[in-house]
Amino acid sequence: MPIDLSVYLVTDRPLCLGRDILDIVREAVQAGVTIVQIREKETPTRDFVALGHAIKAITKTHGVPLLINDRIDVAMAIDADGVHIGQSDMNYADARRLLGYDKIIGLSIDTERQLHEAQSMDVNYLGVGPVFPTQTKKDTSGDWGLEGFKNARSISSHKLVAIGGIDTHNAADVIRSGADGVAVVSAICSAPSPALAVTALVRAIRNQQ
Amino acid sequence: MPIDLSVYLVTDRPLCLGRDILDIVREAVQAGVTIVQIREKETPTRDFVALGHAIKAITKTHGVPLLINDRIDVAMAIDADGVHIGQSDMNYADARRLLGYDKIIGLSIDTERQLHEAQSMDVNYLGVGPVFPTQTKKDTSGDWGLEGFKNARSISSHKLVAIGGIDTHNAADVIRSGADGVAVVSAICSAPSPALAVTALVRAIRNQQ
Repeated sequence: MPIDLSVYLVTDRPLCLGRDILDIVREAVQAGVTIVQIREKETPTRDFVALGHAIKAITKTHGVPLLINDRIDVAMAIDADGVHIGQSDMNYADARRLLGYDKIIGLSIDTERQLHEAQSMDVNYLGVGPVFPTQTKKDTSGDWGLEGFKNARSISSHKLVAIGGIDTHNAADVIRSGADGVAVVSAICSAPSPALAVTALVRAIRNQQ
Repeated sequence: MPIDLSVYLVTDRPLCLGRDILDIVREAVQAGVTIVQIREKETPTRDFVALGHAIKAITKTHGVPLLINDRIDVAMAIDADGVHIGQSDMNYADARRLLGYDKIIGLSIDTERQLHEAQSMDVNYLGVGPVFPTQTKKDTSGDWGLEGFKNARSISSHKLVAIGGIDTHNAADVIRSGADGVAVVSAICSAPSPALAVTALVRAIRNQQ
């Protein structure tokens, strides 16, 4: 079954501004998010697994795939739909070997060189970013911009999810530049109303598809 | 095959005092360490996997089992001999389900209550500590002492590895108190000569067994 990457939520608990992450995910999924990735960098494994089960109970009800960032053990423990791995995480070949082909694997792409390298990998999608400057991830070297993203689109044969500084105002531009979906963190997690933010994102994206 | 837990090295890179962890593991294994656990709390997954492969190349040559602390995905990626999990790591049932019965699983025990809970688990061994005060792990509530360890021994039917503040001077006491092995971190990693430290530990332990 093809994966709908169009409105892609990446969770970030500090960016939830004290609100319960489960409430935000529930609102976001009800409002039209098509895929969810849980990103937890400091959480002990036992708590990460518990959070994964709790979020999966929400996403499963809505038929939305759930991915785990980096932690393949956590993904396996909760039988998530897949993982998202970055360039410092387990390499793609090992991840695929452990998870098999029934699971989704997405890979972060920071540079054009990595984009070329990924051409030989049967990943399910690439996350390309940051497209715009962002406060959420600071360990990157410059941003792609819309022209850079169009160039990435012309190089890669994979599905591409754009990430980094995307919100309701620029999401349509990103889709017009060739993205199969937009991944957002703060634009949903920190929104006064996550539901309204998702509704606006969905509208902006659907109009361009 | 029974596992020889008697001289159990837990690695800690900061405690290697700037020396290469691979050199220290090699020296320690050559001098008689019987099992090695890699503990890396801050290392990105890709680097952890690479370190795991490098250490496995050493331990395998000497027929010494290699365990990974917490990260079941890393253990699976490098086909380690097993994992060691703590009370904040993945729960035992999930870990066993992912790893199967061909792999070793050890579990940290901090309290007498956990010791009783573990009676129903078919873990390969328990790590009980801290036996003595230690600087290596500060997130614990008091230490067991030798009398406490003897009490643990009387409660548990599992193999018990003692950990926490153990060195060449007190290792024999710990074995006499019923430990199947002593786990050491700084007593090897920070020793002026890890090889001599291991030799002294081996001698102290063998004399009591």
